[in-house]
Amino acid sequence: MKEYCFGIDIGGTTVKMGLFRTDGTLLDKWEIPTRTENGGEAVLPDIAASALSRLGKMGIKKDDVEGIGIDVPGPINEEGVVPHTANLGWGYKEVTRELEELTGLPCRAGNDANVAALGEMWKGAAAGHKSGVMVTLGTGVGGGIIIGGKIISGANGAGGEIGHIHVDDNIPGVCGCGNHGCLEQVASANGIVRLARWMMEEKGEIRTSIDTETMTAKEIWDAVKSGDEFAMEVAERFGKYLGLALANIASTVDPEVFVIGGGVSKAGQVVLDYIRKYYVQYTFRSCRDAKFVLASLGNDAGIYGSAKLVIDG
Amino acid sequence: MKEYCFGIDIGGTTVKMGLFRTDGTLLDKWEIPTRTENGGEAVLPDIAASALSRLGKMGIKKDDVEGIGIDVPGPINEEGVVPHTANLGWGYKEVTRELEELTGLPCRAGNDANVAALGEMWKGAAAGHKSGVMVTLGTGVGGGIIIGGKIISGANGAGGEIGHIHVDDNIPGVCGCGNHGCLEQVASANGIVRLARWMMEEKGEIRTSIDTETMTAKEIWDAVKSGDEFAMEVAERFGKYLGLALANIASTVDPEVFVIGGGVSKAGQVVLDYIRKYYVQYTFRSCRDAKFVLASLGNDAGIYGSAKLVIDG
Repeated sequence: MKEYCFGIDIGGTTVKMGLFRTDGTLLDKWEIPTRTENGGEAVLPDIAASALSRLGKMGIKKDDVEGIGIDVPGPINEEGVVPHTANLGWGYKEVTRELEELTGLPCRAGNDANVAALGEMWKGAAAGHKSGVMVTLGTGVGGGIIIGGKIISGANGAGGEIGHIHVDDNIPGVCGCGNHGCLEQVASANGIVRLARWMMEEKGEIRTSIDTETMTAKEIWDAVKSGDEFAMEVAERFGKYLGLALANIASTVDPEVFVIGGGVSKAGQVVLDYIRKYYVQYTFRSCRDAKFVLASLGNDAGIYGSAKLVIDG
Repeated sequence: MKEYCFGIDIGGTTVKMGLFRTDGTLLDKWEIPTRTENGGEAVLPDIAASALSRLGKMGIKKDDVEGIGIDVPGPINEEGVVPHTANLGWGYKEVTRELEELTGLPCRAGNDANVAALGEMWKGAAAGHKSGVMVTLGTGVGGGIIIGGKIISGANGAGGEIGHIHVDDNIPGVCGCGNHGCLEQVASANGIVRLARWMMEEKGEIRTSIDTETMTAKEIWDAVKSGDEFAMEVAERFGKYLGLALANIASTVDPEVFVIGGGVSKAGQVVLDYIRKYYVQYTFRSCRDAKFVLASLGNDAGIYGSAKLVIDG
């Protein structure tokens, strides 16, 4: 194993870049803009130029670099090929091959939610565990399944697509994926607001301290903490849907630990408590003691996970 | 790799034993009774004696045997230890260590449903695929998840416990596991009959050619094939529950293929058709083209899968 590697996390507006020692020490991190114009043609060349320039500044020889790990916000197969990544402007793109040609360094790539899970398992909240499932409650609901240290990426890159687990036929509206009843519709940041509005309709009249016209997920969780009855009912229903989905994941892959991350998880332990209450109710007996932890790497999960991708080869 | 190995499948009444070439050729198979009296103390010695005696009869030297793979009808951890296996009379038992001492051969062990899945992936209906999920619709509903050729056995031996996926809060009665709403309650051989009775209660009055006092799963599927309207409604609901559960498994591990086995699968293609109809409706778009196949090894899946356990080391 060589001494250094890169871990890179491509987002829709910025690319996060990390230079690591292969023992897992983060030496330096920085960001560059994601230039998505013209089919995102500059994204990989910008990354290559920034990485090589950083090596020069740090006085590190390319021969001492194990390679580049990178994640992309969309499905990617085991050969490092994406069919289409809308928010980067990309159509079909051979990510690892192109980046290898641009840098002369070996490259490994993965999906961002899967790679974030790998990062949390390696150096974050789930460090020391052999198997874990990470759920990212952000704009959408993402997920990653790590078994024996490896990402379950799936035959179609859909491994860990936890947000599209079907939880209730009655959820109003259509999910971004085109289906009905997906977890994402009631558990993402927007989903919690959607859930609250649906419950308001069901109830007809409610009493709450929340401004229901402008409410956000954060305001709902703040109201939960201050004892608002309606907000607590929303949190119960949120917990029921997520607890059910995670219980069914446990009957499938039976992980040691669940890691809850993303913007919604910033509300803290209370989020875990509502999820775990229903998880314990629904799950198979042997899986009741699975651990629930909050993600700890925040926005760095992607660069850590990407670095681990290339370290694992 | 040595030339021979054993694949052994312990059931509650008989032990199925197979002598294989390590290229996967089944040379000989036979059965011995499972003597469960006195805490099942004779089970492993009987197996050891039968295996060694067969080597003698075939003129095969122990030195040419790679080892013994074995499955047990209950949870077993990666060290080959079972906490308790009710239908063999066993309490805590170190299965692989004991069998190694009795035979002088290396031993690997797994849970029967997981090992059957491995068998079908290796030499059965899913041969040639890298990832697959097997569902066994028998007295209960068992399952096995194979990813990259390896069983996902889980942190608590509950990997592939598909029968205990929660599918509906409204299912009457309590599952054998102590929970409510499990797939097994409506999709096992007994479960289909339970589902039919529940639907009769819901409807109040039904017209059907089935004798509803004495009906079995087989009679319900026969009636489905002859166009009985009530039986077809039962099959739709069965398909909805299983299709939903498998769709949610696809959003978790995204397998290439689903293998449907066990007694209920003997009704044939019609079972797959009802499951697949709802699978396609509920699953994440990328997973819609997963294959559905009927298990092909029947009662031999366990001995094949057990042999593969020891071949894989």
